[in-house]
Amino acid sequence: MNETELHRIDRTVKQWLRTSREFILSKMQQNLSVSEKSSRKDLVTNVDKENEKLIINKIRTFSPDSQILGEEGFGDQIRQTKGWVWVVDPIDGTMNFVKQRDHFAIMIALYIDGQGVLGYIYDVIGNQLFSGGPDIGVFQNDEPLAAPENVSLRDGLVCLSGPMVMHNYRNFQKVAEASSGLRIYGSAGIEMIHLLKGETVAYVSYLKPWDFGAGKILTETLGLAVTTVDGKPLDMLSSDFVMVATVKAQQDILPIIGSNV
Amino acid sequence: MNETELHRIDRTVKQWLRTSREFILSKMQQNLSVSEKSSRKDLVTNVDKENEKLIINKIRTFSPDSQILGEEGFGDQIRQTKGWVWVVDPIDGTMNFVKQRDHFAIMIALYIDGQGVLGYIYDVIGNQLFSGGPDIGVFQNDEPLAAPENVSLRDGLVCLSGPMVMHNYRNFQKVAEASSGLRIYGSAGIEMIHLLKGETVAYVSYLKPWDFGAGKILTETLGLAVTTVDGKPLDMLSSDFVMVATVKAQQDILPIIGSNV
Repeated sequence: MNETELHRIDRTVKQWLRTSREFILSKMQQNLSVSEKSSRKDLVTNVDKENEKLIINKIRTFSPDSQILGEEGFGDQIRQTKGWVWVVDPIDGTMNFVKQRDHFAIMIALYIDGQGVLGYIYDVIGNQLFSGGPDIGVFQNDEPLAAPENVSLRDGLVCLSGPMVMHNYRNFQKVAEASSGLRIYGSAGIEMIHLLKGETVAYVSYLKPWDFGAGKILTETLGLAVTTVDGKPLDMLSSDFVMVATVKAQQDILPIIGSNV
Repeated sequence: MNETELHRIDRTVKQWLRTSREFILSKMQQNLSVSEKSSRKDLVTNVDKENEKLIINKIRTFSPDSQILGEEGFGDQIRQTKGWVWVVDPIDGTMNFVKQRDHFAIMIALYIDGQGVLGYIYDVIGNQLFSGGPDIGVFQNDEPLAAPENVSLRDGLVCLSGPMVMHNYRNFQKVAEASSGLRIYGSAGIEMIHLLKGETVAYVSYLKPWDFGAGKILTETLGLAVTTVDGKPLDMLSSDFVMVATVKAQQDILPIIGSNV
């Protein structure tokens, strides 16, 4: 894809995101309709659903031949990643959205033939949009974002999911102890933003494709390592324990959790 | 104390805090000098120390007969709480300050004869000052803050310290599982702010007097329960496992951790 076309798509997606943010903010003035998906800790609201429809409608109009993978199921059933695939998470961190009315994100990614092209993570309340891809670099709003320092596990903070810590999954308590400290923010998008800004050195959680689609593109563009906890490449149509880390922190973590790569 | 005097003190402390914030921001342009206190996870910087001296100098000039309890040791050795006692944490969340350059707070509290009178938690980067006390209510910057809803443990997010979760101290893993989710932010001041805004329903951690001095006054003013994990009153000269929670969440947590009050 040539640069003009890439920038045209980039400007278009940013317009969708601003519309989508305004939509969410307006809906936050009203009562939410909250329901449970797989468990009482896996919530969805009317705003998640309506916002996914809004974004998917924009994509269908802009790019009718694309496949769309959406968290709330208004996209397509995708079996292969050939061609253009959009990945949409209309509200990442729905629990934070419901309980905190803050600390959640809209996420959109564009993959072409399985390669990440453009990723977007929008911190709605903070009004901070992280965007970009391998051909244009990463931006925080309109400012280019420098690659974070390659900091070791010992010298950095790590983010893990609560259940992984409590069940000591794959010895991750030892990872937390070997770091400078453990943080839990409750939204993959928000945790990815901390990584992009160099505020943490690793994030590990069980993630679905819409949880990591945008973050993978942005963090890889800034030189972070994105793999499964076994150090293997991600399958963008599957859920897995995903690890995003500085190269040094990844090298520190893999032996602790018994992954020999 | 009459209302005029209380407002005079309040205005004065807010001026100190704005000066102190500017000082920290200016120092963040320079290299930090970081050293370890009790362990490699217990840091202090030149900015913590210089900022404590700055605040203590202001207090000594304003109120020369007060006692001052300061985290970095530039205050007094305090053995009893009679009279005016100021409690100062120049940078709460020093690890976040060092690693994230964000998500830390300046905290100041005034106790008179052991009773909390005024408390201040200043999110420096977010520029959000939480202030007030039992006689004037609580404010976020200049806006009065309403009391958070009395939400149960099941329906709210909880903040615990990483070590408490990992070592399952007093069965707190079960508390996290019984809640809507676990969050860890790494600064007592920032965690208190989440409680004040109703974004979480409980926060439990091993805290020193400067960690809870201001937060106790503000959260109690908004109707939250502040006790030890055994449901007992805090001793403001001692460190302890401190629990700040909605009344409902406190009632839900105490039986899980085996405290019969």
